This record gives sequence, structure tokens and C-alpha cells, in this order.
Amino acid sequence: MKAIIPFKKEGAKSRLRDLFSEREREELALRMLRDVLATLSKSEIEEAEIISTCSEEIMGELKSGFNQKPKLKLTLREDSRGLNEVLNEVLKEEKEPVLIIMADIPLATPESINEIVGHEEDVVIAPGRKGGTNALFLRRPSDFVVSYYGISCLEHIETAKRRNLSYVLHDSFFLSADIDEIDDLAELLIHGRGLSAEYLHQIGVFLRVDKNSKMQAKVDR
Amino acid sequence: MKAIIPFKKEGAKSRLRDLFSEREREELALRMLRDVLATLSKSEIEEAEIISTCSEEIMGELKSGFNQKPKLKLTLREDSRGLNEVLNEVLKEEKEPVLIIMADIPLATPESINEIVGHEEDVVIAPGRKGGTNALFLRRPSDFVVSYYGISCLEHIETAKRRNLSYVLHDSFFLSADIDEIDDLAELLIHGRGLSAEYLHQIGVFLRVDKNSKMQAKVDR
Repeated sequence: MKAIIPFKKEGAKSRLRDLFSEREREELALRMLRDVLATLSKSEIEEAEIISTCSEEIMGELKSGFNQKPKLKLTLREDSRGLNEVLNEVLKEEKEPVLIIMADIPLATPESINEIVGHEEDVVIAPGRKGGTNALFLRRPSDFVVSYYGISCLEHIETAKRRNLSYVLHDSFFLSADIDEIDDLAELLIHGRGLSAEYLHQIGVFLRVDKNSKMQAKVDR
Repeated sequence: MKAIIPFKKEGAKSRLRDLFSEREREELALRMLRDVLATLSKSEIEEAEIISTCSEEIMGELKSGFNQKPKLKLTLREDSRGLNEVLNEVLKEEKEPVLIIMADIPLATPESINEIVGHEEDVVIAPGRKGGTNALFLRRPSDFVVSYYGISCLEHIETAKRRNLSYVLHDSFFLSADIDEIDDLAELLIHGRGLSAEYLHQIGVFLRVDKNSKMQAKVDR
């Protein structure tokens, strides 16, 4: 089974700019992608197609860190169009089930991926926080049209209903935790065991917790 | 099986004070508790013990809205001590497995509750965002000591290890979504189908989404 991963490196993760330089944000984005790929390689997914504006450069960087995991076949599609436009064109041609998964959910687990592709429904939606769709499994991709702006999770439910496709929400905290804002880094520092969490430690990003209060963890550098 | 639900009504949800009056925050807290109870009543849980500083008043309000669901036995323990102190005293006396569940996770599903109590491990931890513990299943409660301040999720993992208890993290987005801050209300408005979401609609809390941007939903009133 194939996964499709949209990925943006240039100008990635702009909402982290108060804490990171541009170069650091790009490195973090790449590391998160590699964490997602590592997770996929331990799951039932056999092939990952990365759709990205930047091409050979990424592929080189990824392959250099990925040789030890030959189980997952990696391909790259260079495309500079918007997310919906490019994905919907790709889906139109897809004959086999497809998992669209975001590149910024480094806490995703192989168990969760296997559960998603194991659901019997036509459409499986793993919600992100605030209405996002962090993973979307489509049994018949050419019957579906994605819409990743606004509250995409509800949009995807509506699309499934309108097209008479059965659907289910996949309830996963680790899939829901996309890393967009500084506060989100807390999840990565608390639960992360991969390359992106390691990178945060390396560059001195840490959790600040007042043990005497019920206040939650804050991220600092 | 029994669930224990710590609940605070007075001064509840103080981080929502920019959007709600004190009375509204108390009503929201009570409605969220009732959503959690409704979920438990559809799960394998047979009894819910609410531990609260306020007593008969809550019980009256709850029972009035709960008569139609006799499946769940409700009891109340009045206690004004801190969360850890009172819970650890209660656990010491418990001979049967117990699920400690927070009152502010109105999106919790019966499926997720049943999965938690179905795990084989001694300790099951459902993480909240930013290191919280939103549900904690203890097969042998008297062997465990809870610690709900700081990054409690990691504390509970450490406690399990130290006491040679097997443990597992239960990966649920809907359990992770505790409603503490204004931003959290977005989850309730997007996914909520119960009394607390209904209340938000009633008092005019709504989502604001710019459909043309990738920015996530904001909450307004």
C-alpha cells in the first residue's frame, strides 16, 4: 500500500520563527519527515511518495539517512502547485488505496498507521487539532476530492457523505499532534523518541515546568 | 468496574475567564462532567464516584439530568483536599480495578473507555495535551501512587516502572482534548455532540475560519 506525503521545505514552519532560524526550521521539518518515514517503514505501508516543491536535494538528504530501511520504497514527485490542486490530480489517477499523511506528525506510531489502513470503511480520517486532517485513508482515491483548507476534517466528512462513501474517524492523539506552533513542541519533547525530538535537544530547546502548579509544560530555549 | 472523577465547580475553568462569566464557566464545567458521565454510562463502567469539594448541590443537579440513564451508579465523595492527596487515599483502600478520568474531556468516547479497561497491562495512561494524564486505569490501585502536577503523564510512567508494573499509553485524540483554554473550545465546537457543545452554541460561542487560508479555526463570541 502507498502513502503520499506532501512536504514543504522552503519557508517551512513559519510559526516557529520566534524560536528558530530559517535553517533550523527547515532542518526540523526534514527530521519530522524522516520520523514519519521511519514510522511508515515499520508499518504495512510499502511505498511512500513525497510530493514537494524541491526535488533532488530532498531526495538526496532523505536517502542518505534512510539506506538502512530498505523496506519502504521512496519516490519523489516535484510539483509546485497548491496542496489541494496537486493531491486531487494525483488521486484522480490512483487505482489502489492510498494513505495521505502529513509530514509534521513525528509522533505517529506504526500501530496507528496499521489501524487506519485496517478499517473497513471507504474513508478513514485521522483528525488533527483544530479541525485539521493529519492522515486520510482512501480506499478508492479516484472517488474522493480532498480539501485541506478551513476545517478540513469536517469537509472530508461532508465529502464522504455527499459521495455515499462510508467513513470513520480514527481516534489517535499521536497522529493529531502536528507540530506547527511553539506550544506544539511540548508534545515532541514529552513523547518524541525520534530524530526530530533529538534535534530539539541538540539545539537546546527544553520544557519548563513548575512542578508546584497545575500549569502545563512550556517550551523554552 | 468503577470510575473516579475529580470535579471542581467553584472557580472552575479560570483560564476561560476572558470569554465567560464565572457562572457560565461553572455551567460549562458541569455540562462537561455530564458528557463524561453519559459516555461512561455507554461503556463497560458500572459505577462513577465523583470526588468534589461541593456536595449535595452537584449531586442534585446531576441526578436531575441523569435519571434516564440508570445503568451507571453515581456516588459522591465530598473532599476539599488537593487532587493527589485525596486520590492517593482513595486508591489505598481500593481492592478492584479503577479508572480515574478527568471531568473536562467531553469528547471521550465509549469505545475509547472500553479499550482502556480492555488493555492487559497493570497501568494504562491516556495522555492529555502537554503532558497531562486524562485517564488512568489501575488494575491494582493500592499498588500505585498518582501525581497529577507537572508532566503527570511521564510521572505516571516512571511510577509504573519503579513499582515493576506493566504499563501502556492509550493513544486517543478525543481523550487528550481537555478543555482548559479558549483555544481548546475549538475542539468542542468541531467534534462535540453532547451537552457542553450544545451550551457553547446556546451562549453564542462560535468558530471563525478563514477558508482561504491554511490557518486553523479560532474561537469567538
